Amino acid sequence: MDFSSDNSFGVHPAIMDAVLAANGGTAVSYGGDDITARVKARFRDLFETDLEVLLVPTGTAANALAVSAFTPTVGAVFAHAEAHIAVEECGSAEFFSGGARLVPVTGFGARMTPATLAAALEACPEGNSRVHVPSVLTLTQATECGTLYRPDDIAALAEIARSRSMAVHIDGARFANAVAALGCPPADIAWRAGVDVMTFGATKNGAMSVEALVLFDTSKAAELDRLRLRAGHLLSKMRFMAAQMDACLADGLWLKLAGDANAAAARLSAGLAALDGVRLAWPTEANEVFAVMPSGLSAHLDRAGARFHGWTTVGLAGTDAMPGKGEELRRLICSFDTGTGAVDRFLAVARGYNG
Amino acid sequence: MDFSSDNSFGVHPAIMDAVLAANGGTAVSYGGDDITARVKARFRDLFETDLEVLLVPTGTAANALAVSAFTPTVGAVFAHAEAHIAVEECGSAEFFSGGARLVPVTGFGARMTPATLAAALEACPEGNSRVHVPSVLTLTQATECGTLYRPDDIAALAEIARSRSMAVHIDGARFANAVAALGCPPADIAWRAGVDVMTFGATKNGAMSVEALVLFDTSKAAELDRLRLRAGHLLSKMRFMAAQMDACLADGLWLKLAGDANAAAARLSAGLAALDGVRLAWPTEANEVFAVMPSGLSAHLDRAGARFHGWTTVGLAGTDAMPGKGEELRRLICSFDTGTGAVDRFLAVARGYNG
Amino acid sequence: MDFSSDNSFGVHPAIMDAVLAANGGTAVSYGGDDITARVKARFRDLFETDLEVLLVPTGTAANALAVSAFTPTVGAVFAHAEAHIAVEECGSAEFFSGGARLVPVTGFGARMTPATLAAALEACPEGNSRVHVPSVLTLTQATECGTLYRPDDIAALAEIARSRSMAVHIDGARFANAVAALGCPPADIAWRAGVDVMTFGATKNGAMSVEALVLFDTSKAAELDRLRLRAGHLLSKMRFMAAQMDACLADGLWLKLAGDANAAAARLSAGLAALDGVRLAWPTEANEVFAVMPSGLSAHLDRAGARFHGWTTVGLAGTDAMPGKGEELRRLICSFDTGTGAVDRFLAVARGYNG
Amino acid sequence: MDFSSDNSFGVHPAIMDAVLAANGGTAVSYGGDDITARVKARFRDLFETDLEVLLVPTGTAANALAVSAFTPTVGAVFAHAEAHIAVEECGSAEFFSGGARLVPVTGFGARMTPATLAAALEACPEGNSRVHVPSVLTLTQATECGTLYRPDDIAALAEIARSRSMAVHIDGARFANAVAALGCPPADIAWRAGVDVMTFGATKNGAMSVEALVLFDTSKAAELDRLRLRAGHLLSKMRFMAAQMDACLADGLWLKLAGDANAAAARLSAGLAALDGVRLAWPTEANEVFAVMPSGLSAHLDRAGARFHGWTTVGLAGTDAMPGKGEELRRLICSFDTGTGAVDRFLAVARGYNG
Repeated sequence: MDFSSDNSFGVHPAIMDAVLAANGGTAVSYGGDDITARVKARFRDLFETDLEVLLVPTGTAANALAVSAFTPTVGAVFAHAEAHIAVEECGSAEFFSGGARLVPVTGFGARMTPATLAAALEACPEGNSRVHVPSVLTLTQATECGTLYRPDDIAALAEIARSRSMAVHIDGARFANAVAALGCPPADIAWRAGVDVMTFGATKNGAMSVEALVLFDTSKAAELDRLRLRAGHLLSKMRFMAAQMDACLADGLWLKLAGDANAAAARLSAGLAALDGVRLAWPTEANEVFAVMPSGLSAHLDRAGARFHGWTTVGLAGTDAMPGKGEELRRLICSFDTGTGAVDRFLAVARGYNG
Repeated sequence: MDFSSDNSFGVHPAIMDAVLAANGGTAVSYGGDDITARVKARFRDLFETDLEVLLVPTGTAANALAVSAFTPTVGAVFAHAEAHIAVEECGSAEFFSGGARLVPVTGFGARMTPATLAAALEACPEGNSRVHVPSVLTLTQATECGTLYRPDDIAALAEIARSRSMAVHIDGARFANAVAALGCPPADIAWRAGVDVMTFGATKNGAMSVEALVLFDTSKAAELDRLRLRAGHLLSKMRFMAAQMDACLADGLWLKLAGDANAAAARLSAGLAALDGVRLAWPTEANEVFAVMPSGLSAHLDRAGARFHGWTTVGLAGTDAMPGKGEELRRLICSFDTGTGAVDRFLAVARGYNG
Repeated sequence: MDFSSDNSFGVHPAIMDAVLAANGGTAVSYGGDDITARVKARFRDLFETDLEVLLVPTGTAANALAVSAFTPTVGAVFAHAEAHIAVEECGSAEFFSGGARLVPVTGFGARMTPATLAAALEACPEGNSRVHVPSVLTLTQATECGTLYRPDDIAALAEIARSRSMAVHIDGARFANAVAALGCPPADIAWRAGVDVMTFGATKNGAMSVEALVLFDTSKAAELDRLRLRAGHLLSKMRFMAAQMDACLADGLWLKLAGDANAAAARLSAGLAALDGVRLAWPTEANEVFAVMPSGLSAHLDRAGARFHGWTTVGLAGTDAMPGKGEELRRLICSFDTGTGAVDRFLAVARGYNG
Repeated sequence: MDFSSDNSFGVHPAIMDAVLAANGGTAVSYGGDDITARVKARFRDLFETDLEVLLVPTGTAANALAVSAFTPTVGAVFAHAEAHIAVEECGSAEFFSGGARLVPVTGFGARMTPATLAAALEACPEGNSRVHVPSVLTLTQATECGTLYRPDDIAALAEIARSRSMAVHIDGARFANAVAALGCPPADIAWRAGVDVMTFGATKNGAMSVEALVLFDTSKAAELDRLRLRAGHLLSKMRFMAAQMDACLADGLWLKLAGDANAAAARLSAGLAALDGVRLAWPTEANEVFAVMPSGLSAHLDRAGARFHGWTTVGLAGTDAMPGKGEELRRLICSFDTGTGAVDRFLAVARGYNG
């Protein structure tokens, strides 16, 4: 009953098999191998457009590299206040960009809106050279709260960004969960909606360690090659990282695994919402469930060995997500490998609680 | 007949098995797992001292993080002019340190000497605040030319560094080859010789992608935790990287594999030196062979499908390593998996050349 | 009737005379001259303690250099959300520190409190290596709103900082105005209250271009020498900058000029508060007046040629400072050279307004 | 008899008068004043083209800002190994650019040649993404050795730079001395020869503290506005810095003062060369004299109170500049205010030496 993180889970067998299969003979190092080339072709098919791909081992690397390539050192990066790049990466964007500022944007459920983005942009009025240059808008899809941006949401935000000559980046550590939930072509929430560059995550979705930095604006590819190397993110035996992504993209495995995780979360969400005294903080749209529950139930689940984190953030006052007296807000993440069994065991334990 | 790089080879079966074995159930992410803990214990045993270990996916990451933790932004890092950190990492040290300067040190065969180090340090006289502060001495062991520093060599260089309050770092991407060749306890060419921090490589020695940043001066451990995260080098599913290092260190596998690579290089070196018109640029001390050969032989080997790079650098004039008219200097690297067969096939092809 | 900025005014005659007097013969460049030595001695007398002084041409330079010397690249700098370093310097702290984060602290009238500082520090919990290390607390004295921190205020905030091992910095672009208003020894709102480093401003107080970076914690002096040089802030003909500061400190000129500016502001403040429909946003404590006035009066004053800026910030809702319908919040700054005449002319114009 | 530096001298009376004259009334701060506008117009006239100008207080600031605006963080800056930016600024270029590398170029008398520049560029072969991107060529005019680049020299070097898409920068701390010596229109050794951006120095030439960053490629002007502010180099009371430059440029004062310095150096050079046992290290082309003299004479001059530095650098072996046994190489700088008297007194002392 581990709902602490998608990172607590291991590697899907098909992906591990691909790693094993890549281990025959010698291959050109640093990405000159055949599997890396095949991965690029797969991404072009997947997104129905020309693009460039750089594989890196972590989402922080992909985010920071992507953002820094579009941000001058006096630039400003606009991210939701709860985004990973804002609060979990110890300043990666500032570091990679050489001192750009990360400007937090508000919005309920980790989702910014045209209104909150516009408000944040007022901190950098046009023509004022005393403040940073708005350079990048980064959106997390699915968000840190497991909520989603629809194609129109992204297009509307991207239009605002474009009006200030900003590039648009997607932190897609859970992009697969978003596509699985929305049922749209990936391109519809990527370049067709105005996205220039994105992080396409695989690690949380059954891989061992690989994320793709996908460039729809390919003009930055040569510079990013160097930025990746300089940051220590160009892996010498690239074929093993490429093999993971190759297996993810083959036969739609990435979408199936994300769908499984979403389905587990939906089942968990429905089960929790049906319990007395438990309510969802916001709708469960991907693979993360946020529930307000009595502290007693919360402790009861911990004692039963369930692993899941508490959650706290600003901006909850006046919403369903705000825990009342004797309540707690907690987060439960389902992975590709969580399965119905673990969900049902967890719900059974929860139902067994006598407040 | 691939002698282009140790990175062209794959993963040793025992290491791959360990990766597979790590794939059961869930585990605490970001290094809180049991395997990572075991790896730390193994390193303490191996080096016979207390220390801290951070695992990262590349040598560039390990080098740059290690160096930057001991270098203020106005610091200077002293490295051999041919060192990886100097000429192959696109400025990683400058980037991670926020602008420190990398000062090249000369020396034949990619090996600096007390005299060449002292000469380089004259660029930063004590008490002159217009120049950088000497901060870190980084030595590559085995060197880029496959040569070695003996324990006394390191101690002598470290003493000079210490006299200027510099920290000492070892880039040990091929540290295993050095230990296998020198036959000394690892500590003798590490902390006992005055080393504060080192990169202990495994990737070139049969792993998939893992290097250990080993801190003998543990005061920097907490800061490095953050620097690693911020640089995107804290892997979420750490257990799979840890499993590789765990297998390397178990039962002395790392030393056996390095010994195999060295033996192959010795066989290749002897075979080449026995050929008419071929001479070694400098003695083969680890797993790299540098030979000056007739251009015709060089082309003959290329045509036969052998993969190995040409080599060029300054400072060769007046030495055996300087190619004469109609000659070329080329590098051949043997890996843990090169084997006697490939060496003998290569030598047979070479012997078949009729100038 | 220029109330736009203390920077709009020129140089006090005594200070200009000192610059002229410094122009005889040759002198050792880069701060090796006699006047620079005398300035250091004056600061030691003024603050009744040992200290080091580095002169620089701007407050941004002094602030950024001071803060960066106490901030690792993964550090966090805590500043009021309205502080100059937060919103007027285009990321100087991030740049000089190599990517540290500036964390905004709230508080009415640009003054943080122990409660708001503690709340901001919660973003960086101890033991969490995913977030920045709290490194520097910077306080502006007098604040951007012309309000003051009393000695006990600073001591209480510094104690919180100290409990997290942070250094304490004062941005004293208007420190003279604070000392003149508080009537305390400078040391009482500096090192005696727990301050490690400060910017002692002179430019806004009648000098041409000179600020002192004063180090009570002298351990950083050698590093700051290099940081200043590297940032281009070590002036070759230092004597002319030193001469300005020398004249400021001689015979208490700095305190007299700041007192004159404060007196002008007090007169202006009282006059404005007495007008129908005008109220002070907060009390006038130094040389800046913030008044809420009818838009009609505001426009009337503009038409009469008065120069003064509008002011806007968050956090005013529910306070006297919040402009109502048909009202505006505006800022008026008095300098050493504003004088009674300009104040009275301005007030006369204001009194002549028939809403 | 101070020949130690042009920075040891004070301010020319006409320039000081201009500073005094700027001290009436209030003025728009941060460069919005009339004098700053006039200076821009003067530069457009002087260089016979459209351009942008940013005034800063030091040459290090002007150099580092200029270079960084044209250098990505993975860029390489090519400078002569003896250039100020390479060895006297503690890494300003690396710092301002966020980690770019400074690549030293050789050449006798601090002057690079097409051949030495081409050789240095081989370190960054096209198409190799493991090394820095050549971004800026910076030339010092007059050089650190007081030698000159002719218009054709600059054009030839700029053509090489252009072939690699590099921008060309002139460090013109002593540009006035170069123009006075060459007798050509400033544009001929600036934009007409392929220069994109330059530092036009005034401080060493009789000003108090002002250098102009002149942009012939004006596309970087807006970014540089922010970079200057962020680096703390935007002076609030700009009119006083502008007044200095205004006076320099009025009526050709800058050229007259530089000509006076050159004439003093020529007289000193001729006098020294005529002495027994003394020889010039290289021809005196601007306001600096480098002479090899017997150590006894050198000490005799020191004892007589002459101030001038010793000089040492690599690459002298086999040239006239190499001191033999019992000889020393020393540098003598003449300023606008050195005058014939000091030169003749110095030469008289020298002539009075009895080896």
